[in-house]
Amino acid sequence: MSDMNCPESEPVLPALYLFPVGLSDTPAADVLPQRNLQLLRRVRYFAVENLRSARRFLKSVDRSIDIGSITFFELDEHTRAADIPAMLEPLENGNPMGVLSEAGCPAIADPGADLVAAAQRRGLPVVPLVGPSSILLSLMGSGFNGQSFTFRGYLPVESGARSRVLKEMQRSIDRDRCTQIFIETPYRNNRLISELARVLPGSMSLCVASDVTGSDESIITRPLSWWAKAKYDYAKRPTIFLLYN
Amino acid sequence: MSDMNCPESEPVLPALYLFPVGLSDTPAADVLPQRNLQLLRRVRYFAVENLRSARRFLKSVDRSIDIGSITFFELDEHTRAADIPAMLEPLENGNPMGVLSEAGCPAIADPGADLVAAAQRRGLPVVPLVGPSSILLSLMGSGFNGQSFTFRGYLPVESGARSRVLKEMQRSIDRDRCTQIFIETPYRNNRLISELARVLPGSMSLCVASDVTGSDESIITRPLSWWAKAKYDYAKRPTIFLLYN
Repeated sequence: MSDMNCPESEPVLPALYLFPVGLSDTPAADVLPQRNLQLLRRVRYFAVENLRSARRFLKSVDRSIDIGSITFFELDEHTRAADIPAMLEPLENGNPMGVLSEAGCPAIADPGADLVAAAQRRGLPVVPLVGPSSILLSLMGSGFNGQSFTFRGYLPVESGARSRVLKEMQRSIDRDRCTQIFIETPYRNNRLISELARVLPGSMSLCVASDVTGSDESIITRPLSWWAKAKYDYAKRPTIFLLYN
Repeated sequence: MSDMNCPESEPVLPALYLFPVGLSDTPAADVLPQRNLQLLRRVRYFAVENLRSARRFLKSVDRSIDIGSITFFELDEHTRAADIPAMLEPLENGNPMGVLSEAGCPAIADPGADLVAAAQRRGLPVVPLVGPSSILLSLMGSGFNGQSFTFRGYLPVESGARSRVLKEMQRSIDRDRCTQIFIETPYRNNRLISELARVLPGSMSLCVASDVTGSDESIITRPLSWWAKAKYDYAKRPTIFLLYN
């Protein structure tokens, strides 16, 4: 993009900019490139997952940002699909627009993807920006295969579907050497670890990546036989789980 | 981490820091957070995929870095597995160490993963840092499902294995709503697009994400029926492919 360096004087090209947001209370400059911060100061239309946290994030980037001059569109799991395309009107009129998740990368495990899809259908330019993804950072830190990996979102709760998925993961590791990445409702994190240690081979490796980029970050890869006896408490902490042989 | 802000006076905690490198000739500050740049100036031991490009990268971050005072370990596809653990000696002696890929995120589709695994086995702390991943940025920009996705690396070349993988991808999209991400040897990019348009349903969507973060970045999602008739030339350009319904 010709505005790559984005000096304050140059115009910002009209596009749908996907702005990652910090995962924890880490200062923005620790996890976001300067380019993001420069662009954030100059975009006046944002689709946001949560209005309050979007305002707080923008203020944390630069206290001098005039929040009152910004138009926000709320885009969450309650937004009707039919209401999404109209949000792109400012961009269709030539204004750069931003997308902000509550935390992490827009459109990765969050509602922004529908807005991006609508922009793609209209042939509008989409520009994803660099920022923290707990999924990707966990994979880097796990030491597992990064040439082949799959993110499965939440494990099913219902016990039949859940054991089917656990078996499928085991097969995918054995057959395709594919790293398995998934999440759990945070208050069930401890139970999930003991379940994995109980039902999967003790020689299989589990990586537990918790509070990634935060002040309590911990990324620990050990065999399930180790986890079976370990003392830990991940309850209510944002955590990513990864399995591999 | 207590060194999150990493002022120049504070000691850098001993850990294996995974430093992403820019994907193209983009200036480092456009795609890397300040924290990475501060840490890079203070680490004196690096495992690197390529010595020349590692030196060039460090110089691009800060011309005043004294390359002569840095110890480099080469870690590429020719490194013998038995030689990897010894590279961790500086870290075991209490020195922070860095890992640098040729481009993108260490340990994602590159040799760094074996060193990370060795550090995990020894219980040494691993700290992945934020930076550009063409896989993740493409997924964000595609508009496809980010709640469930799989990265398959290179498609097989042999025609039987290749059509099996294509069928498997179609099934995984239909059954699990799982976005499929893969790559091809760059000189075959154009042939791959026409192959996908020929053998998969025309209603399926293909996203072609090329030169991500670079000056020729283009991320285009369209039905395969559109790609079948489109004019394009992605030959020899670094490109990620994504499929979804």
